[in-house]
Amino acid sequence: MSIVVLGTVALDTVKTPFGHKRKMLGGSAVHFSMSARLFTDVNLVAIVGADFPPRYINFLKQKGIVLTSLIRGGGKTFHWQGEYKGDLNTALTLNTELGVLSGFKPMIAHEQRKIKNIFLANVDPDIQRHLLNHMHSPHLVGLDSMNYWINHKRRSLLRLLKEVNIYVANDQEARSLSGEHNLIKAAKFLRSHGPEMILIKKGEHGVLLYSDKFTPPLHAGEGFIFSIPAYPTDKVIDPTGAGDTFAGGFMGYLSKAGKISAPALRKAIAYGTIAASFNVEGFGVERTAHLGLVDLKKRLKKFRKAVLF
Amino acid sequence: MSIVVLGTVALDTVKTPFGHKRKMLGGSAVHFSMSARLFTDVNLVAIVGADFPPRYINFLKQKGIVLTSLIRGGGKTFHWQGEYKGDLNTALTLNTELGVLSGFKPMIAHEQRKIKNIFLANVDPDIQRHLLNHMHSPHLVGLDSMNYWINHKRRSLLRLLKEVNIYVANDQEARSLSGEHNLIKAAKFLRSHGPEMILIKKGEHGVLLYSDKFTPPLHAGEGFIFSIPAYPTDKVIDPTGAGDTFAGGFMGYLSKAGKISAPALRKAIAYGTIAASFNVEGFGVERTAHLGLVDLKKRLKKFRKAVLF
Repeated sequence: MSIVVLGTVALDTVKTPFGHKRKMLGGSAVHFSMSARLFTDVNLVAIVGADFPPRYINFLKQKGIVLTSLIRGGGKTFHWQGEYKGDLNTALTLNTELGVLSGFKPMIAHEQRKIKNIFLANVDPDIQRHLLNHMHSPHLVGLDSMNYWINHKRRSLLRLLKEVNIYVANDQEARSLSGEHNLIKAAKFLRSHGPEMILIKKGEHGVLLYSDKFTPPLHAGEGFIFSIPAYPTDKVIDPTGAGDTFAGGFMGYLSKAGKISAPALRKAIAYGTIAASFNVEGFGVERTAHLGLVDLKKRLKKFRKAVLF
Repeated sequence: MSIVVLGTVALDTVKTPFGHKRKMLGGSAVHFSMSARLFTDVNLVAIVGADFPPRYINFLKQKGIVLTSLIRGGGKTFHWQGEYKGDLNTALTLNTELGVLSGFKPMIAHEQRKIKNIFLANVDPDIQRHLLNHMHSPHLVGLDSMNYWINHKRRSLLRLLKEVNIYVANDQEARSLSGEHNLIKAAKFLRSHGPEMILIKKGEHGVLLYSDKFTPPLHAGEGFIFSIPAYPTDKVIDPTGAGDTFAGGFMGYLSKAGKISAPALRKAIAYGTIAASFNVEGFGVERTAHLGLVDLKKRLKKFRKAVLF
């Protein structure tokens, strides 16, 4: 089954100890698409500016991304400038030019409104809700956000949580929104606000899933918990988009599987983890643009050996 | 096969959001013993002061710990006072009274010197070397240390690394000693200084093992890497001694297995992880003192469900 992803299509200028790249193709919806496309048809809902290079449009088309609902606005494309120092764990934002993103109202083509799988990547929660309201029969809805919205639009975000199945957050965001430091406590808090599944991304430390919808529970009377480490690697060139690439692999796999079960969730998380491990090995989409499902499967096999006992 | 553990036997005064306990039985060798005893005979090499409560001696005896080489000095027992706030991840040391620990020269009974498995828990690296020099035929030697020795006795520590098989460090220590932030790079650096196996403890994020001695390698031409998350829990009462409890389960299992192989290492790490998960559920040894191997096995089964895909 197809998937709709709402998010940003951006130009990213990124500096890491391994290089300095200017105005690369980036953005949450793009990184998500690069991994989700390996499993299903991806329908992108986003806006770009008049300055957006046609070669990037062609690239996305070549990758099979459906661009029917990609709007071209009159202003400038969203531009993010960031730098990663030493440990490459934390991005330092040097500059953000919202451009056409400010005032963006997503438009979705009529025939895409009946698609059942939806991922609301990080944009203003009011924009996320706006798109969701236009979908005819959402079945599996994933939501991502960021600290800015947690701090500035907390009520909108909490209200939106009630309407989604999966909330995807990084550890800082989960802690910040819940006020709990322990991530399982944080996940329980977030669960109590709506989503059946809480997926916490811990960067180099992997991913934690909490849900009380699936058996077996880990502790009596509690939820289903699944925890895996990241793919062990010392080849980290540019981590930008790793979280979105994870989400794309995760949601893509689930959309293809067509059902939510404990084994499907485990597998989806493993695929998301592997997809993200490729993302960090190159700048922007350098690495993920050339991936096939066979590459994911090959690395998944290696990953199993590194984590199973 | 039996194991010798050199380390501290301490009185710990610990404050966490869940309570304030004074002069509990603690110390690296004690926490190590609580889990290692579930697999093998544990021979403790340490010193206590004249003030050390006889009930703690009786307790250790009851737990089957061999105390032949536990010296009683004339001064005061090593006393650590610490506090954990909010997140319980970082201990704030309020006070350290070394007491008999300053000037400690470990003595080991003649019949214990032929024991082949040795764990050098965190004390001065010169004291660790002193004990190791007295052992007749060390076969499997594990070493732990701490930032204090990394900063103040770096050369002694690096020299000692050449004589051990396994170096156990937490993530901060591995980074600090290697100067590398990426933990796999850090592990490779440490490997190049001697130990065939580098075990990095990441607290709530689990454990990473690096070795180039075992197959299969994760990446061509590289080492064997094994990575597992911590046991997911939101019941953390007092994390003091979790690292030593991990090491005890790990070394205890390997001592019992009698051989080092990739499957044995994986299993040993899983058992260490489970042992540590019990440790944090109570103050001091409250929880680990009453464990049986059956409890570890039961939780290991649950853990498998939470991490396998």
